[in-house]
Order: sequence, then structure tokens, then C-alpha cells
Amino acid sequence: MAVSVTAALLIIGDEILTGRTKDKNIGYVAEYLTGIGIDLREVRIVPDVEAEIVAAVNALRQRYTYLFTTGGIGPTHDDITADSMAKAFGVGIGHDPRAVAMLQERYQPGELNEARMRMARIPDGADLIENPISKAPGFRIGNVFVMAGVPAIMQVMLDSIAPTLETGAKMISRLIEAEGIPEGHYAEGLAAIAAADERVSIGSYPSFSASGFRNQIVVRGKDAAAVEAAAEAVIQLLARLKGDRNPL
Amino acid sequence: MAVSVTAALLIIGDEILTGRTKDKNIGYVAEYLTGIGIDLREVRIVPDVEAEIVAAVNALRQRYTYLFTTGGIGPTHDDITADSMAKAFGVGIGHDPRAVAMLQERYQPGELNEARMRMARIPDGADLIENPISKAPGFRIGNVFVMAGVPAIMQVMLDSIAPTLETGAKMISRLIEAEGIPEGHYAEGLAAIAAADERVSIGSYPSFSASGFRNQIVVRGKDAAAVEAAAEAVIQLLARLKGDRNPL
Repeated sequence: MAVSVTAALLIIGDEILTGRTKDKNIGYVAEYLTGIGIDLREVRIVPDVEAEIVAAVNALRQRYTYLFTTGGIGPTHDDITADSMAKAFGVGIGHDPRAVAMLQERYQPGELNEARMRMARIPDGADLIENPISKAPGFRIGNVFVMAGVPAIMQVMLDSIAPTLETGAKMISRLIEAEGIPEGHYAEGLAAIAAADERVSIGSYPSFSASGFRNQIVVRGKDAAAVEAAAEAVIQLLARLKGDRNPL
Repeated sequence: MAVSVTAALLIIGDEILTGRTKDKNIGYVAEYLTGIGIDLREVRIVPDVEAEIVAAVNALRQRYTYLFTTGGIGPTHDDITADSMAKAFGVGIGHDPRAVAMLQERYQPGELNEARMRMARIPDGADLIENPISKAPGFRIGNVFVMAGVPAIMQVMLDSIAPTLETGAKMISRLIEAEGIPEGHYAEGLAAIAAADERVSIGSYPSFSASGFRNQIVVRGKDAAAVEAAAEAVIQLLARLKGDRNPL
């Protein structure tokens, strides 16, 4: 039985919306979750504005099994994720002794100033997510996992979170190259194959480079036999179309 | 007077959410809009599911000056953006004679099959956005601009849309390298500078590579003098901190 475990990802940060920083977390998280059997269903990017963060968190955490967030947990004034999360959950927030202890591993007593202590502000009732790189922890509250925005740190946090997650049946996918056959030739046949079995979804992905267009077809689903049968049908469709192939 | 023109971006496509395709449009659109004086305020990524697309379109188009979408306007069964857009606006949809004429430039009469004719399905009342690369057009309906997902095509569409857009005061930004001074040292001073003038926003962006941490501070705003004054205050703050610099 194919159980579905779902997730959303919320990217927090003005720098992504201005284009100053190019996001590197969406693709990584998408591939990672797909690989362990969690369906990423939605991504949002919002600015460093409390009301926007709170609204997105409350919309997404109620809708999906898990919500993952990145960004906004550093020591500066624009790092408002922890406080926003406390507000979204309607809980208090303060310096968490476990988080303070983690920061004390990194900073000498005189160095742990008020700004750095902001990184120990954790909503009441949250569990910490360790950060072996720079110590300042992420946290889990309810079904929400709050991670750093720096990709290297986000990635180690995700590794430590993963074993604690409920996962569903893994998505199985078969990639088939259309080998020069244009989308417009196989589209009708592909639609028929996709419509014939609701356990599979089929996507057609054109890409474009200096060497011209390239079309790739991906058959996906959680039932291995159904995916295999649909992929075989696609391969036969393409073989038939090769006969009357047309460069356009 | 700093006028604010806002936008959201909606990325449509299962392939981004599974991680199969790594998005290349968000960063491009973000930087482009910022450069012409439009504030990108939110991004969402949704799957090829009509109800999800309709809900996102209706939420975002009512909230911002403009909504830009990418993806789902090709000839295959999973290309459902045009139909979803008609549903979101509550209008009819059919083969648009202008769009058919564009496709006829590319395809010989016998080649313009039913699947390819899907690319001429345009919601009633929409204006077309030309596609010099592969002809199949995007369209504008109300304040929503529907573009292709293939980056090269999306980019030429954006170029043709840009002159038609209302734009606001351009965001001015100053980048200041913290040159080894840790965030935790300048965070308090930075917060004070940010709080002193609501016309500027200040972000601190740590990044991490093989050569270690690097912190960059960005001062942004639409009032040139205010940005300049805040940037100068940041530079002076960093100069003061260099005196008692600490490697942690």
C-alpha cells in the first residue's frame, strides 16, 4: 500500500527575493525528500517580515505532514524566524539552556554577547536540531523543522532530521529520452498512456541549449509494476513514431 | 516619492518539486524585476494540479501589482496552465486565431495536430506574449503574465513584457564586506543603524565555503541619500570593530 507523506518548504529571506542570493536549497531539499519517500508538494519564498512568515507557516503546517524552513536563524536583526515561529504557534520564546550550552562550545564567555545569544532564542516546547558546523541550532516545533539558510549547514541539519521522519512509499521514476521526436508528435499518445493508469504520472520536459531542443519523458509512481508498464508503453509509442519522424 | 510596484512569481511544475529539474528562473526573475524597479514579494512553486494552480493564482494576483508564472504551456497533457488560468479568472478558453497564426509560422499544415493546437488555447480576453524561439506564445490576462518554463524562452518573453510594465522607484543597494568580522560582533550595531531609518533595510549574509565563512552586509532602499548615510554608518561601525577583532 502506497502511503503518502507530504511536505512543504518555506524559504525565508529578502536576499532571495531581490536576486542577490541565488537559492541553492530548493533543488537539494526537493531531491532529498523525494529520495526518502516524502512528497514535496509546495514551496514558498517570503521576505524577512514577521506577518508574512507567520501566515505562510500556519497555512503550510496545517496542510502537509511536514514543513521545512530555511533562513533567518542567525544573530542579526533581520533574523526573525524563531520569534515568528513562536508567534505562529502561539507559544512563548526565550533563551533555551540547551542552545546556550551549544553556543558556549563555540564562544568564549566574553564573546557570547546579546546578539549571539539571539541564536539561543528557541520557542517553548521545541526540540533542537544540532549544527556541527557553526553550533547555532535549528529546531523542531510540532511538524515544523527550522533550519539554517547557509546550504552547507542546512544539509547537515537535514541529515540529522531525516532518520526521525515518517516516510512513505518511495517515488519510482523512469527517464526516457525522446531522441529527437518532438513533443507535439508524442503528446496525444502520451496523454492516453497517462490517462490509462492513475497510479502513474507522466511528464514531458523540453529543454533548450546551444545544441537545440531535447525532450525527456519521465514516468513516475509508487507502484513499480505500474511504472514499468507505462514506461514500456512510452518506449513503444516512441518506436512507432520514429517511423514517420519529422524534424519539426 | 518612492512608488512601490510589487510582484509575485508562481513556478508551475511537478519536475521542480521532485528535484528532477533544478529551477533556473527564480533567481533570474528576481534580479530582473529588482533591476527595473519592481519588488518581488513572494514566490510559490506548485505542482501540475489545476486546483493548486487556481488557488495560487487567485491568492497572488489579488495581492500584488503583477503575477508572473512560468511553466505548463506546452503541448502535452501535463501542460494545464492556460486552462487553469481561464478557470482562475472565470472566463472561457479556446483556440486563439492569433496564436494559431503564430504556430502556423512554425508548423506545416499537416504537422499542426491536436496536441500542438493545445498551445493555441488562450483564455478569452488575454493578450499574447510572443515567443521568437519556438513560436508557442505566452499570454497576459489581467495583471497575470504567463510565460514558458524553459529558461531561454522565459527570458525573451520577460524582455518583451518589461516595457509594458509600470515600474516604481528602483531599489538602490550598497554591498559592504565585513572582512572577517563575525556577524555576532556587528549585529547589535547593525540593528541600531537599521532601526534608525525606516527607509533602509539592512541584511547580513553569511556564506560558507572551503575558505571559511564570509559575511556580507547589504544596505537597501529607494532613497539614495538614506542608503548612502546608512552604508557610511555601517562602514564606520566595522572600522571601530576592527580594533578589537576576534577570530571567532
